[in-house]
Amino acid sequence: MKKIINKPEDVVHEMLKGLQDSRPETIGLIPEKRIVYRKDPYLNKVAIISGSGSGHEPDQAFYVGRGMLDAACAGPVFAAPTLDAIVDAARMVDKGMGVLFLVKNYTGDRAYFEMASEMLEFEGGPSVDTVIINDDVAVKDSTFTAGRRGVAGAIFVYKIVGAKSEEGANLGELKGLAYRVNDNVRTMGFALKPCTTPEKGSPTFDLGPQEIEVGVGLHGEPGRERTTYKRANTIIKTLTDAVLEDLPFSGGDEVALMVNGLGGTPIGELYIAAGITHDILKNKHIRVHKTYVNNYCTSLDMEGCSVSLLRLNEDFKRLLAYPVDIPISYF
Amino acid sequence: MKKIINKPEDVVHEMLKGLQDSRPETIGLIPEKRIVYRKDPYLNKVAIISGSGSGHEPDQAFYVGRGMLDAACAGPVFAAPTLDAIVDAARMVDKGMGVLFLVKNYTGDRAYFEMASEMLEFEGGPSVDTVIINDDVAVKDSTFTAGRRGVAGAIFVYKIVGAKSEEGANLGELKGLAYRVNDNVRTMGFALKPCTTPEKGSPTFDLGPQEIEVGVGLHGEPGRERTTYKRANTIIKTLTDAVLEDLPFSGGDEVALMVNGLGGTPIGELYIAAGITHDILKNKHIRVHKTYVNNYCTSLDMEGCSVSLLRLNEDFKRLLAYPVDIPISYF
Repeated sequence: MKKIINKPEDVVHEMLKGLQDSRPETIGLIPEKRIVYRKDPYLNKVAIISGSGSGHEPDQAFYVGRGMLDAACAGPVFAAPTLDAIVDAARMVDKGMGVLFLVKNYTGDRAYFEMASEMLEFEGGPSVDTVIINDDVAVKDSTFTAGRRGVAGAIFVYKIVGAKSEEGANLGELKGLAYRVNDNVRTMGFALKPCTTPEKGSPTFDLGPQEIEVGVGLHGEPGRERTTYKRANTIIKTLTDAVLEDLPFSGGDEVALMVNGLGGTPIGELYIAAGITHDILKNKHIRVHKTYVNNYCTSLDMEGCSVSLLRLNEDFKRLLAYPVDIPISYF
Repeated sequence: MKKIINKPEDVVHEMLKGLQDSRPETIGLIPEKRIVYRKDPYLNKVAIISGSGSGHEPDQAFYVGRGMLDAACAGPVFAAPTLDAIVDAARMVDKGMGVLFLVKNYTGDRAYFEMASEMLEFEGGPSVDTVIINDDVAVKDSTFTAGRRGVAGAIFVYKIVGAKSEEGANLGELKGLAYRVNDNVRTMGFALKPCTTPEKGSPTFDLGPQEIEVGVGLHGEPGRERTTYKRANTIIKTLTDAVLEDLPFSGGDEVALMVNGLGGTPIGELYIAAGITHDILKNKHIRVHKTYVNNYCTSLDMEGCSVSLLRLNEDFKRLLAYPVDIPISYF
């Protein structure tokens, strides 16, 4: 295993340290609890928190900032954050208007966020509510979930709900909005190559030199089908069709398209995928309002991508365009 | 070879098509010449053009837009753009105030941009000037260059010069500014794993499972040393020290730091590198004004990163902060 790391057990701490070093004005860090939080002052808004195992960067720590998350709880690589970190983060960022947890659907993450809610309720606050994100159409249940997995569609939920929180919406309104975004977003991905976790030092699953995993999960868990490598037109059509059929999306819909790299795929290949999806959508008279192409929700160095579609309304469009000030950026 | 591509010979065209599909309001494309240009109207500014072989995305096509480049000429993967594309691009984006070519130092690119300048001069316009970027401290000459190579430091040149062009500076002023940025930026990178070009289908060079290439070039060309894999603290110190010693940078300097991924390295590892560099700079009393961590100038799916430092003045700081509207972004 060759990676830009020191000891495998220090990977998450050193990454979060680098994050805070790089954005000292806006990002606070409690290293021993792996809590990343907004340092810029804010008031009169519900606090938005997400969290999960590390290894999906920029999800979630790099989305902390004005217009998105107010804190992120990072677990060890591919393992849930701790109960006390979630509880502490909620207390820290609450400004008296309550806290909304946005949690991708994985059994471990759900359990800890649920326990944190109960503990906060028992101890008298802050008020907390939780929305579970489950946009992955690939499989009904999986290695790490009962029900569908939460994947890259979560980024649309953070973005839209984070923007609305800046506008002063209350906890109930934000919870409803988060459900509506989740109800209107669908995703499916595939892997060309598996990822290697630092602790294990070898791939999380085996893929032959001519095999791909269609519908792969964010930890390398199995998808719909292990099949032979095919050219981009075929693979991307499989993903896009699965997404389209699920909601279902139909002619006349206006959508946001996200082509999300899984960590090890160059941006040029993601844009090839975006071009293919645009053609498919055009043929179906589905209008793309905005296209998002980048690494948004990854699986360490996994190669491959996912395709997400979010069915839009005027409210979603406005909130997607709301400015953000988050660590992940170019300039 | 498993990549998200169709036919290897169509990779660049399909990528640029995906780019235009994704940003139809702001990005124009002349597919047969691989010219990417700004569609939003602008006047009273010198036009800024860059170009080189493809495979370094987001460099350069994805930097076309307000505040950076007015056009980019993309060659085939790792091969220079054509003469007629450069000439056409210059004519297309000139608004009567002339055109500045910003070219990374590679023999092929230099030759075609130079011929384009001569042809435009011979044919009576537009006025053109050229600045060659050569920020890579790794080697004096290389496989593809006489003199030092141009690498990720080029992005600081585009950014600062592009911003100044929006403020209405003339061609001579912008040329001088481009030289000053180039004079104050230094870079060195390393590879953990080589890249695979679509046409060749196999790695551009061989690296053993425990080897790294220190000072690697953007096409996999050799650097300073082929050595054994070391932990991040050691590798990143080697890069940072080489950069610091070259200018040299010294205590009291204020810098912009760029940790640039080479295409296949996850963002989390780049932030580990950023944290290490911050510590080295702090010990030397060099102040980091702003940190840039992402894939800025890549080598297809190569794994590894480069470290760039730009010595700042108030003018550079202001121009780095100038807003951009370019295709590569998150939201």
